[in-house]
Amino acid sequence: MSNTPNLLEQQDGFSSDYEAENPIVSALDLSSDAEVRVRLEALHPADFSDFVEELTDAQRATLIERAPELITGELLAELDDDVVEDVLLLLEPHLIANALTELDSDDVTQIMEEMEDAQREDVLGAMQPLERAEVEASLAFDDETIGRLMQREFVSAPEFWTVGDTLDHMRETGEDLPDVFYNVYVVDPRLRPIGYVPLSKLIRKSRTTTLASLMKEKLVTIDQNLDQEDAAYLFEKYHLISAPVVNADGRMVGMMTVDDILEIIQDENKEDILALAGVSEAGITDTAFETVKSRAPWLLINLGTAILASLVIARFDYAIEQIVALAVLMPIVASMGGNAGTQALTVAVRGLSERDLTSATAWRAIRREGVSALIIGIIFAVAMAGIAYVWFKDWRLAGVAFAAMIINHVLAGLAGILIPLGLKRAGADPAVSSSVFVTTVTDVVGFAAFLGFAALILL
Amino acid sequence: MSNTPNLLEQQDGFSSDYEAENPIVSALDLSSDAEVRVRLEALHPADFSDFVEELTDAQRATLIERAPELITGELLAELDDDVVEDVLLLLEPHLIANALTELDSDDVTQIMEEMEDAQREDVLGAMQPLERAEVEASLAFDDETIGRLMQREFVSAPEFWTVGDTLDHMRETGEDLPDVFYNVYVVDPRLRPIGYVPLSKLIRKSRTTTLASLMKEKLVTIDQNLDQEDAAYLFEKYHLISAPVVNADGRMVGMMTVDDILEIIQDENKEDILALAGVSEAGITDTAFETVKSRAPWLLINLGTAILASLVIARFDYAIEQIVALAVLMPIVASMGGNAGTQALTVAVRGLSERDLTSATAWRAIRREGVSALIIGIIFAVAMAGIAYVWFKDWRLAGVAFAAMIINHVLAGLAGILIPLGLKRAGADPAVSSSVFVTTVTDVVGFAAFLGFAALILL
Repeated sequence: MSNTPNLLEQQDGFSSDYEAENPIVSALDLSSDAEVRVRLEALHPADFSDFVEELTDAQRATLIERAPELITGELLAELDDDVVEDVLLLLEPHLIANALTELDSDDVTQIMEEMEDAQREDVLGAMQPLERAEVEASLAFDDETIGRLMQREFVSAPEFWTVGDTLDHMRETGEDLPDVFYNVYVVDPRLRPIGYVPLSKLIRKSRTTTLASLMKEKLVTIDQNLDQEDAAYLFEKYHLISAPVVNADGRMVGMMTVDDILEIIQDENKEDILALAGVSEAGITDTAFETVKSRAPWLLINLGTAILASLVIARFDYAIEQIVALAVLMPIVASMGGNAGTQALTVAVRGLSERDLTSATAWRAIRREGVSALIIGIIFAVAMAGIAYVWFKDWRLAGVAFAAMIINHVLAGLAGILIPLGLKRAGADPAVSSSVFVTTVTDVVGFAAFLGFAALILL
Repeated sequence: MSNTPNLLEQQDGFSSDYEAENPIVSALDLSSDAEVRVRLEALHPADFSDFVEELTDAQRATLIERAPELITGELLAELDDDVVEDVLLLLEPHLIANALTELDSDDVTQIMEEMEDAQREDVLGAMQPLERAEVEASLAFDDETIGRLMQREFVSAPEFWTVGDTLDHMRETGEDLPDVFYNVYVVDPRLRPIGYVPLSKLIRKSRTTTLASLMKEKLVTIDQNLDQEDAAYLFEKYHLISAPVVNADGRMVGMMTVDDILEIIQDENKEDILALAGVSEAGITDTAFETVKSRAPWLLINLGTAILASLVIARFDYAIEQIVALAVLMPIVASMGGNAGTQALTVAVRGLSERDLTSATAWRAIRREGVSALIIGIIFAVAMAGIAYVWFKDWRLAGVAFAAMIINHVLAGLAGILIPLGLKRAGADPAVSSSVFVTTVTDVVGFAAFLGFAALILL
């Protein structure tokens, strides 16, 4: 009945079954193709797709050859983008077109995106004209916009309909309704959404109740050109399960549902966290070469900024030659500033993506960063001065460390919030390049303040 | 009709209306209390709560005094945890108990969690006995478990019921049903869930169809003691909209819905991203003091590890005294290693939280990190050697930088994946402490390798 417990044991990892056997691999050992099919059909589609993702290309080819009926539209929709690309290459166009007929239009579009141009043409050619037109309309929208992601199947009704009318209509329409849906959208004569009735309200009411009397009017609609991240924000903020998508005239042209939004949210979160670390992309099936490609560019930029910091040190080489303790202590100042800057930066980037950090709260946040950076700076300046004195028995060196630490902390805190705010205002993604700027500031300022004061006071 | 466009303009921030007026503040300028109410009732509850969050305590008190009917259960459920705590302190127990009656049990529990013990007792005393018993049962579960978070209202039916029986039952039950729901759960005579029927399927079928013939059997159930993060993973993986919660006997005791899961996912993502930066918590209403408290502990640990790195440098002070170029170049090696380690670490932590990095894929990931670190190490070792030569015209110094760079990159890559895997295996949260360990490794190794080779070869 439920495959939950098993799943969690297996996935939570690092237990006894460290190299658990993939059930597809063991099924392919069976001699009869029918047995293979029966065995694998028992899996939940989401589990089946996970196991397909773990197979080699040769194993996938064997699976397709021995049990082609298992390659359903649902499976293709479940697979990771990288994997679906590989699997599609193993399939005939008519087989793909067939598999896609069972899906809602949003899933079809998502799969078509992963095809190469020639294959996409072949599959479009093998589709029903109406389905084909829908897919082509979706693909005409920009990547990551709602027009591309929405499904074109939805249920709408005029406000004068009764509950009875609506239920009868849905029974008659049957297969042409969306696979699953949660709301009936009430539209005006020009097909503009004006309210909605959750199914769970509709079925509680008598057949004679009108939709007009039932519908909720505080409706959040989504423009078909809206970016997916903005749409995800609306779903979160208004706790939406589904929302009508409208065109420039306000006419309802599609529907977004929360399951697709969940994926978008995870993708956007992943993008943010990876961008902060300077990684452009990461997937389960990455090769070492892809890993290098996604990380080397930021390391190259970091090399540049590290050299900048080194130039600062080189500028004060005469001071280090005379007082080697400076070389010993200087990385502490830079490292503390770098970490404090990263803390402020991460909080700011997260606040921007959650939209807690807005025009209304920006000044308060900047003030808070400034004040807390000063407090933290003083705390650790005292600690640092103590360490410098205990270690090198020199009050003046301790004083230099004290002053450099405060300055670097305050600048780190301010850079940590002002840089992402500035990037956002300039229309750039604050997660992508903030780290470079912030750590450059803290390294350069850290070394310059510490060595500069030292040169002034100690020499 | 729709408040979307307005909202996005206002929130996307940093446009002309930089200090946009809070509509609650302007409404409170009106002389008539009735006008205040009418003006503010027009706002979507989610917007209204955002504006309440921006008010000062005094403004909130005025709002409650002038328009107490606006403080609904829905508003309390929408407010940020920090803010709801403050607002509750301004309200009488019977007013709170009243406001809570309109909510499903999960929302009630969430609000009760934010009360101080004395107030919670008072509010429980003012509640209906049945409601009170439900809340107490939920509060008896551990924090962050499903038993605490689920709602106790759900719709279940035996498999021999027809569509007609089910619809009639729901019409009769009316108000006692959950506020909104998406599935009817089919249960066996011992009330264990054995399948489900989405409402959108139910209403398409004739009244005589039995649930047994309609229900989907691949059902994912959630144990009441499951951690919220594991439950969120199941929702994502299986694209669930709602799921039945069962007790140790497998009996259905509640239901989780995707809107609550969305919040959990955002919380967990926020926790991960902040933990990687060494911040224990961050909220929109944090004071400077709370900010210091959430960041200082990790900075203290970082001070310790920075000193460790300094001790390594101090060990080689005689080398730096003779060749000051070492002090100039050594931060580059450490910084490159630190960044490469953070990249590997972030990808691993994200992979663990998305459960892409499991027992089945760990070895492949470790191998990939090792190989890509070696490639990246070689690329940047060549660059570094070139820079060292151009700058200081010393082939042996360039050779030392070359060797130190490769070693630090390979160790950074391996530490970046092995440390979070090890922490996970030891039962710790891999996001929380990994950064400290990884940057300690890269700093210590970076300085030790570079200065050690230099002492061996150059002196």
